[in-house]
Amino acid sequence: MNDETWAKFAARMKELVHLGEIGQLMGWDEQTMMPPKAAPGRAAQTGTLAAVGHEKLTNAEYGDLIEELGQQDLDPDKAAMVALAKRDRDMAVKLPAKLVRELAETASHAQVAWQKARTEDDYFIFEPLLGKMFELKAQQAEALGYEKEPYDAHLDLFERGATAEMLQPMFDSVTEGLAPTIWEARARNGRIPTLPKGIYDVDAVLGYCRDLLGRMGYDMEAGRLDLSAHPFTCGLGPRDARVTTRIRTDDPQEAILATLHEMGHGQYQLGLREDWAETTIGAPVSLGVHESQSRLWENHVGRSLAFWEGELPKAQAVLGPWRSESPENIYKAINRVEPSLIRVQADEVTYPLHVAVRFELELAICRGDLTTADLPEAWNDSYDRHLGVTPRSNADGVLQDVHWSLGYLGYFPTYLIGSVYAAALFDAATASLGGADAVNQQFREGDFQPLLDWLRREVHALGSSKLPAEIIASATDKPMTEGIDTEPFVSYIKRKYSALYS
Amino acid sequence: MNDETWAKFAARMKELVHLGEIGQLMGWDEQTMMPPKAAPGRAAQTGTLAAVGHEKLTNAEYGDLIEELGQQDLDPDKAAMVALAKRDRDMAVKLPAKLVRELAETASHAQVAWQKARTEDDYFIFEPLLGKMFELKAQQAEALGYEKEPYDAHLDLFERGATAEMLQPMFDSVTEGLAPTIWEARARNGRIPTLPKGIYDVDAVLGYCRDLLGRMGYDMEAGRLDLSAHPFTCGLGPRDARVTTRIRTDDPQEAILATLHEMGHGQYQLGLREDWAETTIGAPVSLGVHESQSRLWENHVGRSLAFWEGELPKAQAVLGPWRSESPENIYKAINRVEPSLIRVQADEVTYPLHVAVRFELELAICRGDLTTADLPEAWNDSYDRHLGVTPRSNADGVLQDVHWSLGYLGYFPTYLIGSVYAAALFDAATASLGGADAVNQQFREGDFQPLLDWLRREVHALGSSKLPAEIIASATDKPMTEGIDTEPFVSYIKRKYSALYS
Repeated sequence: MNDETWAKFAARMKELVHLGEIGQLMGWDEQTMMPPKAAPGRAAQTGTLAAVGHEKLTNAEYGDLIEELGQQDLDPDKAAMVALAKRDRDMAVKLPAKLVRELAETASHAQVAWQKARTEDDYFIFEPLLGKMFELKAQQAEALGYEKEPYDAHLDLFERGATAEMLQPMFDSVTEGLAPTIWEARARNGRIPTLPKGIYDVDAVLGYCRDLLGRMGYDMEAGRLDLSAHPFTCGLGPRDARVTTRIRTDDPQEAILATLHEMGHGQYQLGLREDWAETTIGAPVSLGVHESQSRLWENHVGRSLAFWEGELPKAQAVLGPWRSESPENIYKAINRVEPSLIRVQADEVTYPLHVAVRFELELAICRGDLTTADLPEAWNDSYDRHLGVTPRSNADGVLQDVHWSLGYLGYFPTYLIGSVYAAALFDAATASLGGADAVNQQFREGDFQPLLDWLRREVHALGSSKLPAEIIASATDKPMTEGIDTEPFVSYIKRKYSALYS
Repeated sequence: MNDETWAKFAARMKELVHLGEIGQLMGWDEQTMMPPKAAPGRAAQTGTLAAVGHEKLTNAEYGDLIEELGQQDLDPDKAAMVALAKRDRDMAVKLPAKLVRELAETASHAQVAWQKARTEDDYFIFEPLLGKMFELKAQQAEALGYEKEPYDAHLDLFERGATAEMLQPMFDSVTEGLAPTIWEARARNGRIPTLPKGIYDVDAVLGYCRDLLGRMGYDMEAGRLDLSAHPFTCGLGPRDARVTTRIRTDDPQEAILATLHEMGHGQYQLGLREDWAETTIGAPVSLGVHESQSRLWENHVGRSLAFWEGELPKAQAVLGPWRSESPENIYKAINRVEPSLIRVQADEVTYPLHVAVRFELELAICRGDLTTADLPEAWNDSYDRHLGVTPRSNADGVLQDVHWSLGYLGYFPTYLIGSVYAAALFDAATASLGGADAVNQQFREGDFQPLLDWLRREVHALGSSKLPAEIIASATDKPMTEGIDTEPFVSYIKRKYSALYS
């Protein structure tokens, strides 16, 4: 191998990683710290950064270096770096610079319009920009190309290799598999306690959440917890993963579970290999795998009885109204199954149906079967069919998510992929760590290091060096399959909730 | 004029402005929000952004556009944009990439060494890197070129057109002019009260400072106030100027005055013309003029009696120990003159002497009359001559400022230029707003809008469309002079302090 060629390639790859990280900082700031009037200026800056990144990625010399290295006999890591660089570059080359800039700028404007539309509960403030965004995304899909249908081009951006054809059976089998549990829960919800209402101090809850992160092994010197309208995580660099939560003053449950959820994302970022940090393979492999980490910590840990047996006394020191509750009560209450309107507040059983609604609608839009003008009605109809509930307003309906304003078509399905992968990974981790009793005992003792170490080793440290499905297959020690095996997830739900509701 | 040529030029100019603003965000985050372990990653990202900016600036096509437009008959604004672009580009082109990289790397290492040297009070930990930095800066001056002496090349980076020859008389006349006031103060300091010590709540003081900003007319929807180790201001975009302060729990004076100081910088940023925001002339014109804005609000407003007559009741609502104080007492205490060792804690009368020490020493270094090995001794000697005090240690002496470690040679004089310009501007504003009595009455009533409007019109809105000295001359309605007229500043000091100490 020619060392000089590699050095040139590595320098360019590093630059691209840095520009991506700078974009993460800009996004984090926009949602946590930025003064409101700065929004138009930030949109323009974001457009410039995207354009610069696009120039660097499509640069001809970078292409030549990738070609040259692609023909050489590299070690597997380097070969994977070059292959991913080639994939990224090939995709970028297909996108006209004008479209890239328009997408970035429209996203910034549409996000502002979405916020206003949601606050004022007026969908049609947002609709023109949403229409423009979907039109730009359609252009993007055509430019990128696809085998079967445009939606597959969108999916591939978030979950390498996923197609509508492959995801439809996953949605069908999960929807079908969970139905009995949901019916059972509906009939028997009278048995499940609710959490005590009260007035909770925002600073106190935020302080508790920060302490909780520290206790769970999150490196607070390489991260932060802040408040934002919508909880999220940003990876801003090799030792900089920032998470957010939001706090309701009448109920701390969402804040705590969102903190654990985002912590899962953040731990994935912090668990990536530092020696790969400035390479293509040093990044998280897909949104589905990213979401498996957040779901695992939120649901398999944070919604477990053992976790609350250990954690409740610490929570009670801060959360006054919880002082008369037992771990069993907290456990039952936070696992209460109830079809509802808001995805981010959904329990883990009905959650997949919220995702199914979005999958159905965005697929219909991409297939030309639905327009943005008709979207609110279609949304309400789909909620009625899937969950048996109807939004009172668009703010509680089609306006609840930021994703589409940002152009994230094909993103929602990764939430279900995440739930499904999380169950498979947790099964494998449990087996590796001595079985359910041993793991529960660790949770009771507040010792999450063995689980974290397992995830670091089996998932985080692999970065993007393999395909998502390969990483899951090797971590769970199962053969690769064509589709996504939903069995571990459906079994987990049935097992947990039949006990809870028995 | 060829519209297409202009459009291409404008697009490149805009990109450069955006990259600069993104750099400001990275700097702001680094000093306020960034988790500590993120530092090495951020340094690498910063290096990439600087390299990208340098590439864009030195790009040959940009040079061709500038050449082409330079030969056309443009309107004055556009001609100024092209002229500044040419200046920026010519300077960047003159610097070898190797030198740029070495300067950045040495700054990064030297800053770490400086911190260690300061903590351990051991100058010679820092000295080798400081020597290397000065050597690289000498190379930079040679590359950039100068008419009379290398120091002028350094000055020009921060204050367009300034030279040692022009600044020496400014320092001499200020030093001489202030001497009687300082001697008088030394003799009579027993008459000046000190501020009441106490224990002040950080959140309460911060909240007070935020309210103060709002009352002074700072647009808090286009800015923020946060805490940082050293107060600073960043302009992150046309509607985004963030200021910081620092809070001592035993004395809120520094926090309040630093807030007003940084507010002056921030108002300058927010007062720049929005329609010039993405051009070379839409930026602050120089560090001296920037500092004139901060000094004006800190000293001519924040250290005035009229200001405290209006503000004290509001401050007393938050600052318990101040409740028994009169406006006169606060006024006297915060204007106490006392020669001291630390520049950033100095009063406005002795402050120029701290700057004079640094000017003298860095000039001697650039002229080859002083070596880094002899610098501590020269520092102590200069402090003794100028201020009559001698540092107990190098930590309180030559190691107190970060500037030289970063390669900021020629930066310190802009602090005095700022004080001098501030006095001239405040005189002109006072005359324009109906005289001292009228202005004092406005301050008493908490009405700072007339002053702010005047500064917006006479200084802020001009951006970099003229030279610093031209802006000051037109704002003060005086003819342009060769040097910097120190009379308004010296008169202001004499007038104010002879009354105070009488």
